[in-house]
Amino acid sequence: MDNLHIVLVKTTHPGNIGAAARAMKTMGLQCLRLVSPQTPYPSAEITARAAGADSVLEKAQVFETLEEAIRDCQLVIGTGAQQRSLPLARWTPRACADAVMSLSSDTPVAIVFGTERSGLTNEEFALCQRQVVIPTHPDYTSLNLAAAVQIMSYELFLAASERQIVPVAEKTSSEVLATAEAYQQFYQHLEETLLQIEFIKPGVDKKILPRLKRLFNRACLEKREIDLLRGFLKAI
Amino acid sequence: MDNLHIVLVKTTHPGNIGAAARAMKTMGLQCLRLVSPQTPYPSAEITARAAGADSVLEKAQVFETLEEAIRDCQLVIGTGAQQRSLPLARWTPRACADAVMSLSSDTPVAIVFGTERSGLTNEEFALCQRQVVIPTHPDYTSLNLAAAVQIMSYELFLAASERQIVPVAEKTSSEVLATAEAYQQFYQHLEETLLQIEFIKPGVDKKILPRLKRLFNRACLEKREIDLLRGFLKAI
Repeated sequence: MDNLHIVLVKTTHPGNIGAAARAMKTMGLQCLRLVSPQTPYPSAEITARAAGADSVLEKAQVFETLEEAIRDCQLVIGTGAQQRSLPLARWTPRACADAVMSLSSDTPVAIVFGTERSGLTNEEFALCQRQVVIPTHPDYTSLNLAAAVQIMSYELFLAASERQIVPVAEKTSSEVLATAEAYQQFYQHLEETLLQIEFIKPGVDKKILPRLKRLFNRACLEKREIDLLRGFLKAI
Repeated sequence: MDNLHIVLVKTTHPGNIGAAARAMKTMGLQCLRLVSPQTPYPSAEITARAAGADSVLEKAQVFETLEEAIRDCQLVIGTGAQQRSLPLARWTPRACADAVMSLSSDTPVAIVFGTERSGLTNEEFALCQRQVVIPTHPDYTSLNLAAAVQIMSYELFLAASERQIVPVAEKTSSEVLATAEAYQQFYQHLEETLLQIEFIKPGVDKKILPRLKRLFNRACLEKREIDLLRGFLKAI
Protein backbone atom coordinates (compact mmCIF):
# COMPACT_ATOMS: atom_id res chain seq x y z
CA MET A 1 0.00 0.00 0.00
CA ASP A 2 3.06 2.28 0.35
CA ASN A 3 3.19 2.89 -3.39
CA LEU A 4 -0.46 3.87 -3.73
CA HIS A 5 -0.74 7.65 -3.95
CA ILE A 6 -4.01 9.47 -3.43
CA VAL A 7 -3.75 12.70 -5.42
CA LEU A 8 -6.20 15.52 -4.66
CA VAL A 9 -6.29 18.24 -7.31
CA LYS A 10 -7.21 21.82 -6.37
CA THR A 11 -9.25 20.85 -3.32
CA THR A 12 -11.36 23.76 -2.06
CA HIS A 13 -12.58 22.74 1.40
CA PRO A 14 -10.05 22.13 4.19
CA GLY A 15 -12.46 19.63 5.79
CA ASN A 16 -12.23 17.43 2.72
CA ILE A 17 -8.43 17.23 2.89
CA GLY A 18 -8.57 16.24 6.56
CA ALA A 19 -11.42 13.78 6.01
CA ALA A 20 -9.61 12.25 3.02
CA ALA A 21 -6.49 11.70 5.15
CA ARG A 22 -8.64 10.00 7.80
CA ALA A 23 -10.41 7.88 5.18
CA MET A 24 -7.06 6.77 3.78
CA LYS A 25 -5.52 5.88 7.11
CA THR A 26 -8.48 3.72 8.20
CA MET A 27 -7.74 1.62 5.12
CA GLY A 28 -3.96 1.51 5.53
CA LEU A 29 -3.11 4.13 2.88
CA GLN A 30 -0.40 6.62 3.86
CA CYS A 31 0.62 8.57 0.75
CA LEU A 32 -1.26 11.77 0.03
CA ARG A 33 -0.29 14.24 -2.68
CA LEU A 34 -1.95 17.63 -2.98
CA VAL A 35 -1.94 19.56 -6.22
CA SER A 36 -2.32 23.31 -5.76
CA PRO A 37 -4.79 23.19 -2.83
CA GLN A 38 -7.26 26.10 -2.94
CA THR A 39 -7.17 26.50 0.84
CA PRO A 40 -4.28 27.28 3.19
CA TYR A 41 -2.27 24.14 3.92
CA PRO A 42 -1.61 23.02 6.59
CA SER A 43 -4.40 24.44 8.75
CA ALA A 44 -6.13 23.76 12.04
CA GLU A 45 -9.36 22.71 10.29
CA ILE A 46 -7.55 20.17 8.12
CA THR A 47 -5.88 18.66 11.19
CA ALA A 48 -9.13 18.65 13.16
CA ARG A 49 -11.03 16.75 10.47
CA ALA A 50 -8.15 14.29 10.07
CA ALA A 51 -8.97 13.20 13.65
CA GLY A 52 -5.67 11.52 14.45
CA ALA A 53 -4.55 10.69 10.92
CA ASP A 54 -1.73 13.18 11.40
CA SER A 55 0.89 10.83 10.00
CA VAL A 56 -0.79 11.09 6.57
CA LEU A 57 -0.83 14.90 6.70
CA GLU A 58 2.78 15.10 7.89
CA LYS A 59 3.97 12.95 5.00
CA ALA A 60 1.74 14.66 2.42
CA GLN A 61 3.50 16.32 -0.51
CA VAL A 62 2.31 19.48 -2.23
CA PHE A 63 2.82 20.10 -5.96
CA GLU A 64 2.10 22.96 -8.31
CA THR A 65 0.77 20.84 -11.15
CA LEU A 66 -0.75 17.40 -11.63
CA GLU A 67 2.05 16.53 -14.04
CA GLU A 68 4.64 17.01 -11.29
CA ALA A 69 2.55 15.08 -8.77
CA ILE A 70 2.39 11.96 -10.93
CA ARG A 71 5.75 12.07 -12.68
CA ASP A 72 7.12 8.93 -10.95
CA CYS A 73 3.86 6.95 -11.24
CA GLN A 74 3.50 4.00 -13.58
CA LEU A 75 -0.26 3.78 -13.53
CA VAL A 76 -2.38 6.93 -13.30
CA ILE A 77 -6.10 6.51 -12.65
CA GLY A 78 -8.55 9.41 -12.81
CA THR A 79 -11.78 9.31 -10.81
CA GLY A 80 -15.12 10.73 -11.89
CA ALA A 81 -18.15 9.88 -13.99
CA GLN A 82 -17.56 12.53 -16.65
CA GLN A 83 -18.31 11.44 -20.18
CA ARG A 84 -15.31 12.45 -22.20
CA SER A 85 -15.16 13.18 -25.89
CA LEU A 86 -12.28 10.69 -26.03
CA PRO A 87 -13.35 8.04 -23.54
CA LEU A 88 -10.84 6.17 -21.40
CA ALA A 89 -11.45 2.59 -20.36
CA ARG A 90 -13.79 2.83 -17.35
CA TRP A 91 -13.30 0.71 -14.26
CA THR A 92 -15.54 0.13 -11.27
CA PRO A 93 -13.76 0.74 -7.94
CA ARG A 94 -13.59 -3.01 -7.37
CA ALA A 95 -12.14 -3.77 -10.80
CA CYS A 96 -9.67 -0.93 -10.28
CA ALA A 97 -8.56 -2.28 -6.90
CA ASP A 98 -8.10 -5.76 -8.33
CA ALA A 99 -6.07 -4.41 -11.23
CA VAL A 100 -3.87 -2.31 -8.95
CA MET A 101 -3.20 -5.29 -6.70
CA SER A 102 -2.17 -7.37 -9.70
CA LEU A 103 0.82 -5.04 -10.17
CA SER A 104 3.99 -5.66 -8.18
CA SER A 105 3.88 -3.88 -4.81
CA ASP A 106 6.74 -1.52 -5.75
CA THR A 107 4.85 -0.06 -8.72
CA PRO A 108 3.94 3.58 -7.97
CA VAL A 109 0.23 4.11 -8.71
CA ALA A 110 -1.71 7.41 -8.55
CA ILE A 111 -5.44 7.66 -8.00
CA VAL A 112 -6.45 11.20 -8.87
CA PHE A 113 -9.47 13.12 -7.55
CA GLY A 114 -10.52 16.45 -9.08
CA THR A 115 -11.84 19.58 -7.47
CA GLU A 116 -15.13 19.36 -5.53
CA ARG A 117 -17.35 21.34 -7.85
CA SER A 118 -16.47 19.90 -11.21
CA GLY A 119 -14.03 16.99 -10.82
CA LEU A 120 -11.12 16.47 -13.16
CA THR A 121 -10.83 18.62 -16.27
CA ASN A 122 -10.32 17.17 -19.72
CA GLU A 123 -6.69 18.26 -19.56
CA GLU A 124 -6.23 16.45 -16.25
CA PHE A 125 -7.93 13.31 -17.55
CA ALA A 126 -5.58 13.40 -20.52
CA LEU A 127 -2.76 12.59 -18.06
CA CYS A 128 -4.61 9.47 -16.88
CA GLN A 129 -4.48 5.98 -18.32
CA ARG A 130 -7.67 4.68 -16.81
CA GLN A 131 -10.91 6.17 -15.47
CA VAL A 132 -12.65 4.81 -12.40
CA VAL A 133 -16.34 5.55 -11.89
CA ILE A 134 -17.91 5.05 -8.47
CA PRO A 135 -21.47 3.83 -9.08
CA THR A 136 -24.14 6.20 -7.78
CA HIS A 137 -27.89 6.45 -8.06
CA PRO A 138 -28.85 8.34 -11.24
CA ASP A 139 -31.16 10.67 -9.28
CA TYR A 140 -28.34 12.07 -7.16
CA THR A 141 -24.73 11.56 -8.10
CA SER A 142 -23.15 14.22 -5.86
CA LEU A 143 -20.62 12.13 -3.96
CA ASN A 144 -18.55 14.07 -1.43
CA LEU A 145 -14.82 14.14 -2.22
CA ALA A 146 -13.73 12.49 1.03
CA ALA A 147 -16.53 9.92 0.64
CA ALA A 148 -15.17 9.03 -2.80
CA VAL A 149 -11.68 8.66 -1.30
CA GLN A 150 -13.20 6.47 1.43
CA ILE A 151 -14.87 4.11 -1.06
CA MET A 152 -11.76 3.79 -3.24
CA SER A 153 -9.53 3.25 -0.18
CA TYR A 154 -11.95 0.63 1.16
CA GLU A 155 -11.88 -1.33 -2.10
CA LEU A 156 -8.09 -1.13 -2.26
CA PHE A 157 -7.80 -2.33 1.33
CA LEU A 158 -10.16 -5.26 0.67
CA ALA A 159 -8.29 -6.23 -2.48
CA ALA A 160 -4.94 -5.97 -0.65
CA SER A 161 -6.25 -8.13 2.19
CA GLU A 162 -7.43 -10.77 -0.26
CA ARG A 163 -4.07 -10.74 -1.99
CA GLN A 164 -2.33 -11.36 1.31
CA ILE A 165 -4.37 -14.54 1.70
CA VAL A 166 -4.08 -15.71 -1.89
CA PRO A 167 -0.81 -14.40 -3.32
CA VAL A 168 -0.72 -13.97 -7.05
CA ALA A 169 2.15 -15.71 -8.78
CA GLU A 170 2.56 -13.52 -11.81
CA LYS A 171 2.95 -9.81 -11.32
CA THR A 172 4.20 -7.10 -13.58
CA SER A 173 7.60 -5.94 -12.35
CA SER A 174 7.95 -2.23 -11.59
CA GLU A 175 11.01 -2.26 -13.81
CA VAL A 176 8.81 -2.77 -16.83
CA LEU A 177 6.26 0.04 -16.96
CA ALA A 178 7.02 3.60 -18.02
CA THR A 179 6.54 6.53 -15.63
CA ALA A 180 4.12 9.39 -16.27
CA GLU A 181 7.14 11.63 -16.77
CA ALA A 182 8.40 9.36 -19.55
CA TYR A 183 4.97 9.56 -21.21
CA GLN A 184 5.03 13.36 -21.08
CA GLN A 185 8.51 13.51 -22.60
CA PHE A 186 7.39 11.13 -25.31
CA TYR A 187 4.24 13.19 -26.00
CA GLN A 188 6.30 16.36 -26.28
CA HIS A 189 8.64 14.61 -28.69
CA LEU A 190 5.63 13.32 -30.61
CA GLU A 191 4.04 16.76 -30.89
CA GLU A 192 7.29 18.34 -32.08
CA THR A 193 7.68 15.65 -34.69
CA LEU A 194 4.07 15.97 -35.90
CA LEU A 195 4.57 19.73 -36.26
CA GLN A 196 7.93 19.35 -38.02
CA ILE A 197 6.53 17.04 -40.63
CA GLU A 198 3.42 19.30 -40.82
CA PHE A 199 1.10 16.43 -40.02
CA ILE A 200 -0.52 18.92 -37.65
CA LYS A 201 -0.38 22.70 -37.83
CA PRO A 202 -0.24 24.98 -34.74
CA GLY A 203 -3.82 25.79 -33.69
CA VAL A 204 -5.37 23.46 -36.28
CA ASP A 205 -6.25 19.72 -36.07
CA LYS A 206 -6.61 19.99 -32.30
CA LYS A 207 -8.03 16.50 -31.92
CA ILE A 208 -5.21 14.49 -33.44
CA LEU A 209 -2.70 14.70 -30.61
CA PRO A 210 -5.27 13.95 -27.86
CA ARG A 211 -6.41 10.89 -29.81
CA LEU A 212 -2.87 9.60 -30.11
CA LYS A 213 -2.19 10.24 -26.42
CA ARG A 214 -5.32 8.36 -25.46
CA LEU A 215 -4.25 5.41 -27.54
CA PHE A 216 -0.83 5.25 -25.86
CA ASN A 217 -2.24 5.90 -22.38
CA ARG A 218 -4.63 3.01 -22.80
CA ALA A 219 -1.79 0.74 -23.81
CA CYS A 220 0.05 1.13 -20.45
CA LEU A 221 3.39 1.39 -22.17
CA GLU A 222 6.59 -0.30 -21.07
CA LYS A 223 9.79 1.71 -20.71
CA ARG A 224 11.43 -0.01 -23.63
CA GLU A 225 8.37 0.63 -25.80
CA ILE A 226 8.69 4.35 -25.09
CA ASP A 227 12.39 4.13 -26.00
CA LEU A 228 11.42 2.37 -29.19
CA LEU A 229 8.75 4.95 -30.10
CA ARG A 230 11.10 7.84 -29.40
CA GLY A 231 13.75 6.17 -31.54
CA PHE A 232 11.15 6.04 -34.27
CA LEU A 233 10.31 9.75 -33.82
CA LYS A 234 14.00 10.61 -33.98
CA ALA A 235 14.34 8.62 -37.18
CA ILE A 236 11.40 10.55 -38.67
CA MET B 1 -34.30 0.34 -1.08
CA ASP B 2 -37.37 2.07 0.40
CA ASN B 3 -37.48 -0.35 3.31
CA LEU B 4 -33.86 0.07 4.28
CA HIS B 5 -33.59 2.37 7.27
CA ILE B 6 -30.35 3.97 8.32
CA VAL B 7 -30.62 4.60 12.07
CA LEU B 8 -28.20 7.04 13.71
CA VAL B 9 -28.12 6.82 17.50
CA LYS B 10 -27.24 9.91 19.58
CA THR B 11 -25.20 11.57 16.86
CA THR B 12 -23.13 14.45 18.25
CA HIS B 13 -21.88 16.40 15.21
CA PRO B 14 -24.42 18.09 12.91
CA GLY B 15 -22.01 17.69 9.99
CA ASN B 16 -22.21 13.92 10.34
CA ILE B 17 -26.00 13.89 10.06
CA GLY B 18 -25.86 16.00 6.90
CA ALA B 19 -23.00 14.00 5.42
CA ALA B 20 -24.79 10.72 6.22
CA ALA B 21 -27.92 11.96 4.38
CA ARG B 22 -25.77 12.86 1.38
CA ALA B 23 -23.96 9.49 1.51
CA MET B 24 -27.31 7.67 1.58
CA LYS B 25 -28.84 9.60 -1.30
CA THR B 26 -25.88 9.02 -3.62
CA MET B 27 -26.59 5.31 -3.19
CA GLY B 28 -30.37 5.51 -3.55
CA LEU B 29 -31.23 5.24 0.16
CA GLN B 30 -33.96 7.58 1.39
CA CYS B 31 -34.97 6.51 4.89
CA LEU B 32 -33.12 8.09 7.80
CA ARG B 33 -34.10 7.64 11.43
CA LEU B 34 -32.48 9.66 14.19
CA VAL B 35 -32.48 8.48 17.77
CA SER B 36 -32.13 11.29 20.30
CA PRO B 37 -29.67 13.44 18.29
CA GLN B 38 -27.24 15.30 20.58
CA THR B 39 -27.32 18.40 18.38
CA PRO B 40 -30.25 20.68 17.43
CA TYR B 41 -32.21 19.14 14.57
CA PRO B 42 -32.89 20.42 11.96
CA SER B 43 -30.12 23.00 11.63
CA ALA B 44 -28.37 25.08 8.98
CA GLU B 45 -25.13 23.09 9.35
CA ILE B 46 -26.92 19.77 8.84
CA THR B 47 -28.59 21.07 5.68
CA ALA B 48 -25.33 22.58 4.40
CA ARG B 49 -23.43 19.32 4.73
CA ALA B 50 -26.29 17.39 3.12
CA ALA B 51 -25.47 19.39 -0.04
CA GLY B 52 -28.77 18.84 -1.84
CA ALA B 53 -29.85 15.62 -0.16
CA ASP B 54 -32.71 17.60 1.39
CA SER B 55 -35.29 14.97 0.54
CA VAL B 56 -33.61 12.57 2.98
CA LEU B 57 -33.60 15.17 5.77
CA GLU B 58 -37.22 16.17 5.11
CA LYS B 59 -38.38 12.57 5.39
CA ALA B 60 -36.16 11.77 8.39
CA GLN B 61 -37.92 10.64 11.54
CA VAL B 62 -36.76 11.41 15.07
CA PHE B 63 -37.26 8.98 17.98
CA GLU B 64 -36.56 9.10 21.69
CA THR B 65 -35.19 5.57 21.95
CA LEU B 66 -33.64 2.97 19.67
CA GLU B 67 -36.43 0.55 20.60
CA GLU B 68 -39.02 2.93 19.13
CA ALA B 69 -36.92 3.58 16.04
CA ILE B 70 -36.72 -0.10 15.11
CA ARG B 71 -40.10 -1.39 16.32
CA ASP B 72 -41.45 -2.14 12.81
CA CYS B 73 -38.17 -3.62 11.52
CA GLN B 74 -37.78 -7.32 10.82
CA LEU B 75 -34.02 -7.41 10.65
CA VAL B 76 -31.92 -5.16 12.88
CA ILE B 77 -28.20 -4.92 12.15
CA GLY B 78 -25.79 -3.11 14.45
CA THR B 79 -22.56 -1.64 13.08
CA GLY B 80 -19.22 -1.51 14.87
CA ALA B 81 -16.18 -3.60 15.61
CA GLN B 82 -16.78 -3.88 19.37
CA GLN B 83 -16.00 -7.24 20.88
CA ARG B 84 -19.02 -8.14 22.95
CA SER B 85 -19.17 -10.45 25.92
CA LEU B 86 -21.99 -12.24 24.10
CA PRO B 87 -20.91 -12.08 20.47
CA LEU B 88 -23.41 -11.70 17.66
CA ALA B 89 -22.80 -13.26 14.26
CA ARG B 90 -20.47 -10.80 12.47
CA TRP B 91 -20.96 -9.85 8.86
CA THR B 92 -18.71 -7.97 6.46
CA PRO B 93 -20.50 -5.06 4.73
CA ARG B 94 -20.65 -7.09 1.52
CA ALA B 95 -22.10 -10.19 3.19
CA CYS B 96 -24.57 -7.96 4.99
CA ALA B 97 -25.69 -6.29 1.76
CA ASP B 98 -26.13 -9.66 0.06
CA ALA B 99 -28.16 -10.99 2.98
CA VAL B 100 -30.37 -7.89 3.06
CA MET B 101 -31.03 -8.16 -0.67
CA SER B 102 -32.03 -11.80 -0.29
CA LEU B 103 -35.03 -10.66 1.77
CA SER B 104 -38.18 -9.56 -0.01
CA SER B 105 -38.14 -5.86 -0.86
CA ASP B 106 -41.00 -5.07 1.53
CA THR B 107 -39.09 -6.33 4.58
CA PRO B 108 -38.21 -3.38 6.83
CA VAL B 109 -34.53 -3.55 7.73
CA ALA B 110 -32.63 -1.27 10.11
CA ILE B 111 -28.89 -0.65 9.97
CA VAL B 112 -27.91 1.03 13.20
CA PHE B 113 -24.90 3.31 13.80
CA GLY B 114 -23.89 4.34 17.33
CA THR B 115 -22.59 7.63 18.64
CA GLU B 116 -19.29 8.98 17.22
CA ARG B 117 -17.09 8.54 20.25
CA SER B 118 -17.95 5.04 21.37
CA GLY B 119 -20.36 3.41 18.91
CA LEU B 120 -23.28 1.27 20.02
CA THR B 121 -23.56 0.33 23.69
CA ASN B 122 -24.04 -3.23 24.85
CA GLU B 123 -27.70 -2.41 25.55
CA GLU B 124 -28.14 -1.11 22.01
CA PHE B 125 -26.40 -4.13 20.50
CA ALA B 126 -28.75 -6.33 22.51
CA LEU B 127 -31.57 -5.03 20.26
CA CYS B 128 -29.71 -6.18 17.13
CA GLN B 129 -29.79 -9.55 15.45
CA ARG B 130 -26.59 -9.24 13.51
CA GLN B 131 -23.37 -7.21 13.76
CA VAL B 132 -21.64 -5.77 10.73
CA VAL B 133 -17.96 -4.88 10.97
CA ILE B 134 -16.39 -2.61 8.36
CA PRO B 135 -12.82 -3.84 7.84
CA THR B 136 -10.18 -1.28 8.79
CA HIS B 137 -6.42 -1.31 9.18
CA PRO B 138 -5.48 -2.45 12.70
CA ASP B 139 -3.17 0.57 13.19
CA TYR B 140 -6.01 3.08 12.84
CA THR B 141 -9.62 2.00 13.04
CA SER B 142 -11.24 5.41 13.58
CA LEU B 143 -13.75 5.46 10.75
CA ASN B 144 -15.85 8.62 10.55
CA LEU B 145 -19.58 8.04 11.10
CA ALA B 146 -20.67 9.40 7.71
CA ALA B 147 -17.85 7.45 6.04
CA ALA B 148 -19.20 4.26 7.63
CA VAL B 149 -22.69 5.11 6.35
CA GLN B 150 -21.15 5.74 2.91
CA ILE B 151 -19.46 2.34 2.77
CA MET B 152 -22.57 0.47 3.93
CA SER B 153 -24.80 2.40 1.51
CA TYR B 154 -22.36 1.71 -1.33
CA GLU B 155 -22.40 -2.03 -0.65
CA LEU B 156 -26.21 -2.05 -0.42
CA PHE B 157 -26.49 -0.14 -3.70
CA LEU B 158 -24.11 -2.52 -5.46
CA ALA B 159 -25.96 -5.55 -4.12
CA ALA B 160 -29.31 -4.03 -5.15
CA SER B 161 -28.01 -3.27 -8.63
CA GLU B 162 -26.82 -6.86 -9.01
CA ARG B 163 -30.18 -8.16 -7.86
CA GLN B 164 -31.93 -6.08 -10.49
CA ILE B 165 -29.92 -7.84 -13.15
CA VAL B 166 -30.22 -11.32 -11.70
CA PRO B 167 -33.50 -11.51 -9.81
CA VAL B 168 -33.59 -14.06 -7.05
CA ALA B 169 -36.47 -16.49 -7.27
CA GLU B 170 -36.87 -17.39 -3.64
CA LYS B 171 -37.20 -14.64 -1.13
CA THR B 172 -38.44 -14.61 2.40
CA SER B 173 -41.83 -12.91 2.48
CA SER B 174 -42.22 -9.92 4.80
CA GLU B 175 -45.26 -11.66 6.22
CA VAL B 176 -43.05 -14.26 7.81
CA LEU B 177 -40.50 -12.50 10.00
CA ALA B 178 -41.26 -10.97 13.39
CA THR B 179 -40.80 -7.26 14.05
CA ALA B 180 -38.39 -5.84 16.62
CA GLU B 181 -41.44 -4.77 18.64
CA ALA B 182 -42.66 -8.36 18.74
CA TYR B 183 -39.23 -9.44 19.98
CA GLN B 184 -39.29 -6.87 22.77
CA GLN B 185 -42.77 -7.92 23.88
CA PHE B 186 -41.64 -11.51 23.87
CA TYR B 187 -38.49 -10.68 25.87
CA GLN B 188 -40.55 -8.79 28.45
CA HIS B 189 -42.88 -11.76 28.71
CA LEU B 190 -39.87 -14.06 28.99
CA GLU B 191 -38.27 -12.01 31.78
CA GLU B 192 -41.52 -11.89 33.76
CA THR B 193 -41.88 -15.61 33.43
CA LEU B 194 -38.28 -16.30 34.46
CA LEU B 195 -38.78 -14.10 37.54
CA GLN B 196 -42.12 -15.69 38.42
CA ILE B 197 -40.69 -19.17 38.38
CA GLU B 198 -37.61 -17.82 40.22
CA PHE B 199 -35.27 -19.10 37.52
CA ILE B 200 -33.69 -15.67 37.84
CA LYS B 201 -33.85 -13.31 40.82
CA PRO B 202 -33.98 -9.50 40.50
CA GLY B 203 -30.40 -8.16 40.42
CA VAL B 204 -28.86 -11.66 40.36
CA ASP B 205 -27.97 -13.94 37.41
CA LYS B 206 -27.63 -10.92 35.14
CA LYS B 207 -26.22 -12.90 32.26
CA ILE B 208 -29.01 -15.38 31.73
CA LEU B 209 -31.55 -13.12 30.03
CA PRO B 210 -28.98 -11.53 27.66
CA ARG B 211 -27.82 -14.99 26.64
CA LEU B 212 -31.36 -16.08 25.86
CA LYS B 213 -32.05 -12.89 23.93
CA ARG B 214 -28.92 -13.37 21.90
CA LEU B 215 -29.96 -16.89 21.03
CA PHE B 216 -33.38 -15.76 19.80
CA ASN B 217 -32.00 -12.70 18.00
CA ARG B 218 -29.61 -14.88 16.11
CA ALA B 219 -32.42 -17.15 15.03
CA CYS B 220 -34.28 -14.37 13.13
CA LEU B 221 -37.63 -15.53 14.46
CA GLU B 222 -40.81 -15.81 12.46
CA LYS B 223 -44.01 -14.24 13.73
CA ARG B 224 -45.63 -17.57 14.37
CA GLU B 225 -42.57 -18.77 16.27
CA ILE B 226 -42.90 -15.80 18.60
CA ASP B 227 -46.59 -16.64 19.05
CA LEU B 228 -45.61 -20.21 19.81
CA LEU B 229 -42.95 -19.18 22.35
CA ARG B 230 -45.32 -16.78 24.07
CA GLY B 231 -47.97 -19.49 24.22
CA PHE B 232 -45.34 -21.61 25.93
CA LEU B 233 -44.52 -18.84 28.43
CA LYS B 234 -48.20 -18.40 29.18
CA ALA B 235 -48.50 -22.12 29.78
CA ILE B 236 -45.56 -21.95 32.22
